Amino acid sequence: MRESDFLRHVAQTATGDPRVLIPPGDDLAALTTPCGPLLTGVDQLIDGRHVDLDRVSAAAAGRKAVRRCISDLAAMAARPWATLAAVVLPSDFGSSRTIELFDAVRVDCERLSCPLVGGDIAIHAADRPGPLVLSISVIGHADGIAPVRRTGARPGDRLVVTGRLGATLAPDGTGHHLEFEPRVEAARELASTLGAELHAMIDLSDGLGRDGAAVARASGVDLNIQASLLPRRGSATWREAMSDGEDYELFAAVGPDVAIPSAVDRIPLTVIGTVEAVADGQAGPRVRVTADGESHDLTDAGWDHVGDES
Amino acid sequence: MRESDFLRHVAQTATGDPRVLIPPGDDLAALTTPCGPLLTGVDQLIDGRHVDLDRVSAAAAGRKAVRRCISDLAAMAARPWATLAAVVLPSDFGSSRTIELFDAVRVDCERLSCPLVGGDIAIHAADRPGPLVLSISVIGHADGIAPVRRTGARPGDRLVVTGRLGATLAPDGTGHHLEFEPRVEAARELASTLGAELHAMIDLSDGLGRDGAAVARASGVDLNIQASLLPRRGSATWREAMSDGEDYELFAAVGPDVAIPSAVDRIPLTVIGTVEAVADGQAGPRVRVTADGESHDLTDAGWDHVGDES
Repeated sequence: MRESDFLRHVAQTATGDPRVLIPPGDDLAALTTPCGPLLTGVDQLIDGRHVDLDRVSAAAAGRKAVRRCISDLAAMAARPWATLAAVVLPSDFGSSRTIELFDAVRVDCERLSCPLVGGDIAIHAADRPGPLVLSISVIGHADGIAPVRRTGARPGDRLVVTGRLGATLAPDGTGHHLEFEPRVEAARELASTLGAELHAMIDLSDGLGRDGAAVARASGVDLNIQASLLPRRGSATWREAMSDGEDYELFAAVGPDVAIPSAVDRIPLTVIGTVEAVADGQAGPRVRVTADGESHDLTDAGWDHVGDES
Repeated sequence: MRESDFLRHVAQTATGDPRVLIPPGDDLAALTTPCGPLLTGVDQLIDGRHVDLDRVSAAAAGRKAVRRCISDLAAMAARPWATLAAVVLPSDFGSSRTIELFDAVRVDCERLSCPLVGGDIAIHAADRPGPLVLSISVIGHADGIAPVRRTGARPGDRLVVTGRLGATLAPDGTGHHLEFEPRVEAARELASTLGAELHAMIDLSDGLGRDGAAVARASGVDLNIQASLLPRRGSATWREAMSDGEDYELFAAVGPDVAIPSAVDRIPLTVIGTVEAVADGQAGPRVRVTADGESHDLTDAGWDHVGDES
């Protein structure tokens, strides 16, 4: 089953509960509460799928899981509040690696001001072995800034991205995908500075082709990106910057009537393209990259997090 | 690694964040918010460990996972607010079972007024196969009733339990462990009726011997239970009522100065024993059952959810 098919089913059956302000389909869901919107979501890290424990320490895997999930709070410009961690361990994982994993998760949560408040631990049954599965849930709050959704990009908007893209996985399994910092403060600063002109935002986990397409579809627009403007990491080509994934940078659509700062929270902010009306009604919203005068369709270029079809 | 050793490490390293009202170690954690305490926690269901998918449908497994977690909200007398679900599927799980699982989770969450607002889905890597892992996180709120902890039992209290205990797993894999209802309304009614005289509460997931020991240790008391008073399911012996686990009934300590209702939310409420000062300082808090004039130590009788030692 493809992720897109599953997500279509999820959207079709979404709850009509009036307490749900933002239903499944954005970076996080939002609940209406007497003290403002509460943001919440969950993400999983699986050995063999998102990380390779033959090449990466338990501590690095734990930190990655935490940061990926807190990056979703950044995508909505939310303030971190609390983290839950649930883990299933292979039966031979051992006590010291278990403690190493737990401590790495706990310390990173505290550092990111999203304290670990609860969790669950279990071990795979001997007759049904399995890999490490680490599931991280986060709760955040809007704290005076309306959650920034994927749905608000409009023709005429400019597209911006924080930091650099691509080349996130080194040949030895290390690299940016283990070392990134969730852009929580950058997102808060961007939202405060731009106010209602910050029309849409997402964090780049699957690649700009794929995450950009999520924004394009949610907003009903085309995204046109200039390859020459893409801020690239190291030796990344523009195609790799569009599709490597695991950048965990912020990607946003900003209205035309506001000055765009050159940096937020000391992270460079780069204008990389524009939002246009959908050019081809048959094809629907697209993500296009112009390189050397030619237009390339990069819609959905990136990584299917769900994994193989089944 | 034993669950108790791991939990000791968790308690020793608990955060001192002032936003955390109840740290890890109770049924759920609680956060201080401008609109009152927010309760949150996570629980996992693993094929081969908590359920056997060779004998139980995906839908029944999904409902069990949801109800176990909402039962923790009941244990704190909290009002359900929202659910998150994260699932890792075996690569051969198939689309129709995936949809069956999702729909069962979603419908049960709505029925229990705890709408499914977010989630994550992934598939085990082909070279690192594994079983179904379903992780459910819940958020609840106090809604005018202070969260009821495990820590408040005092000598002189009476011990009460809702419903019946034991014989929760039928030989064919079905039974009460798949069909129970979280005691959300019963807990709210009990807390409203008894007020500050409801000293401590827990939901019985691992068995009264084990969950009772958690209350005894958290409160620093002994629990003395009369075997003849235990409300038993079907053919359960008093030992099975103490240790089968997966009852998901409420177990509470109630102060001496209040009348105990015979039922809450139409569920029978039974007085089964008393709280005493710790009798043996060396042994520490114990759970004892008096049967036919003899005292039996049932401390920690029940089920270690973490699984095998590693």
